[in-house]
Amino acid sequence: MDTERVFFEQMRSEFKRILLKHSLTEDQAGRCAEIFAVNSLEGIYSHGVYRFPRFIRHILKGYIDVHAKPELINSLGSLEQWEGNLAPGPLNAEFSTNRAMDIAEQYGLGGIALANTNHWMRGGTYGWQAARKGFAFVGWTNTEANMPAWGAKGSRLGNNPLVIAVPFENEAIVLDFAMSQYSYGKMENKKLEGEQLPYPGGFNRKGELSTDPSEILESGRALPIGYWKGSGLSLLLDILATLLSGGLSTHQLSKREAEYGVSQVFIAMDLKKLSNYPSIESTISDIIEDMKKSDTDKPETKVFYPGENVVATRNENLKNGIPVNKEVWDAIKKL
Amino acid sequence: MDTERVFFEQMRSEFKRILLKHSLTEDQAGRCAEIFAVNSLEGIYSHGVYRFPRFIRHILKGYIDVHAKPELINSLGSLEQWEGNLAPGPLNAEFSTNRAMDIAEQYGLGGIALANTNHWMRGGTYGWQAARKGFAFVGWTNTEANMPAWGAKGSRLGNNPLVIAVPFENEAIVLDFAMSQYSYGKMENKKLEGEQLPYPGGFNRKGELSTDPSEILESGRALPIGYWKGSGLSLLLDILATLLSGGLSTHQLSKREAEYGVSQVFIAMDLKKLSNYPSIESTISDIIEDMKKSDTDKPETKVFYPGENVVATRNENLKNGIPVNKEVWDAIKKL
Repeated sequence: MDTERVFFEQMRSEFKRILLKHSLTEDQAGRCAEIFAVNSLEGIYSHGVYRFPRFIRHILKGYIDVHAKPELINSLGSLEQWEGNLAPGPLNAEFSTNRAMDIAEQYGLGGIALANTNHWMRGGTYGWQAARKGFAFVGWTNTEANMPAWGAKGSRLGNNPLVIAVPFENEAIVLDFAMSQYSYGKMENKKLEGEQLPYPGGFNRKGELSTDPSEILESGRALPIGYWKGSGLSLLLDILATLLSGGLSTHQLSKREAEYGVSQVFIAMDLKKLSNYPSIESTISDIIEDMKKSDTDKPETKVFYPGENVVATRNENLKNGIPVNKEVWDAIKKL
Repeated sequence: MDTERVFFEQMRSEFKRILLKHSLTEDQAGRCAEIFAVNSLEGIYSHGVYRFPRFIRHILKGYIDVHAKPELINSLGSLEQWEGNLAPGPLNAEFSTNRAMDIAEQYGLGGIALANTNHWMRGGTYGWQAARKGFAFVGWTNTEANMPAWGAKGSRLGNNPLVIAVPFENEAIVLDFAMSQYSYGKMENKKLEGEQLPYPGGFNRKGELSTDPSEILESGRALPIGYWKGSGLSLLLDILATLLSGGLSTHQLSKREAEYGVSQVFIAMDLKKLSNYPSIESTISDIIEDMKKSDTDKPETKVFYPGENVVATRNENLKNGIPVNKEVWDAIKKL
């Protein structure tokens, strides 16, 4: 794979140029380009530069309505229901995160449930944004079906990524994970590289646990994290997102020709108003410090907190440029 | 193991007698006995009848203060911080669940963070209570360290059970799970029965994944669900519970001679006020119905939703009595 390094500013302005060409406003194009470029800068290439061409295709197909804005349907006080109107997913998600923080400033806890929105790309984006402004954040999205329920073989559950974030040392601790043990993208890469998965990632056609990505891609039986536990968590995240937003659930999304119109939840907590606010920095530091004292099998093995490696990747890519497959980047430049 | 069947009313009144003898008030003893008896009735014996003697010991040791009540420390509107004052865990948790529902009725979303409380026994108890009153519920507790972080070998994380519940057909869908793949109690039972775990439950001393409960009990290396994912989720649940409540974190709890003074979070959502409230029953039914259509390897294999088997167990135990180890029950009667 021929790779080139593209600098952050160059990538952002290229994305912005293309988005403006596809009728996003100056402000929308700027925000959307920023999100795609930051995701790439921070190493989440699958939901940054590599996903950008599909985002444009979804605009052209009409799955994404670039002229739409989210609308308030119902306010319960600290919980609001919004209609996403199929506006660009990252813009809807950023808007909802900001609105959840506004509500949290008023009530301590603020929740937004968003119906008929689109793929938010990297869920961690909104966790980082909220945590850097001093909020704790919990958010999740449903998806089309891509994982069998526990005990089943056909996919009826989504992998429904969940994000939890808190501020930490001017950066953040951000957990961003899907309910399947490995994404299909990860398994496809491992297959291409001729490698096994480090841990079982699904069942083969015979119903046996497997570390062979080819077998799992063939059976379509990706493994929920923690077996029955991740299956249950996926189900409940879908039910909650669907109930609270009044939007579509995984089984409804799966009947469409493409994944659009998903349901999402964004919850912010205003840490500034806590009675223990003066000590929250040391509270988090102490927890992380204790975890880092863990013994490991090999002295060189380090224990990381979620999101810890993002800062190093960001700095590396800021300095040397973002690594991108040359063919993909050439195709993007022609969009 | 010699088992006898104890009827629900008999178990509840026996628990109540013992709790009154240990200075709980009439009302407290009644509620607490009810929770322990219902947990047993619904098949969660480990956090019902089998845990009751330890609950009494913790009263005698002074870890639980039967005269204490929770106190409001700080109200942010829809989020409140409470001091648990080491009152009985199930009573504090029930109180907090009720208070979260009251706040949710006012603001849509209601959150309680509770510091210095005690073991809530079965987290699902509070999910069932809230869901049966028409609320969606999310709650979790931290625990003392009982699971290594991903990459580590000494226990520095708790298994921090998480509960998510929604109403369903006059009953509920209740997910109640710990962040370790199997509890130590489960692994000890499997060891006693001379059986292997159905799926890997931890690492042995050599750092290899193992299904042998003896090996895992010996190494103390229980597996987080989804490997690095459950490790991250456990960490974030501890951080959030500690931050929001201002209470103790897993590493602080682990320095005590026994597990007491944990931190918990209770969040309720008032479904009645949603714009789509009239259709929420059919929304949930449709999701469950779709999942139940899943193909399985063997036609006799059924796909269940979390909590589905509780109703059958409850009915069976209501009719025939709750199965209890005779020795344990004899010892309880002497308390």
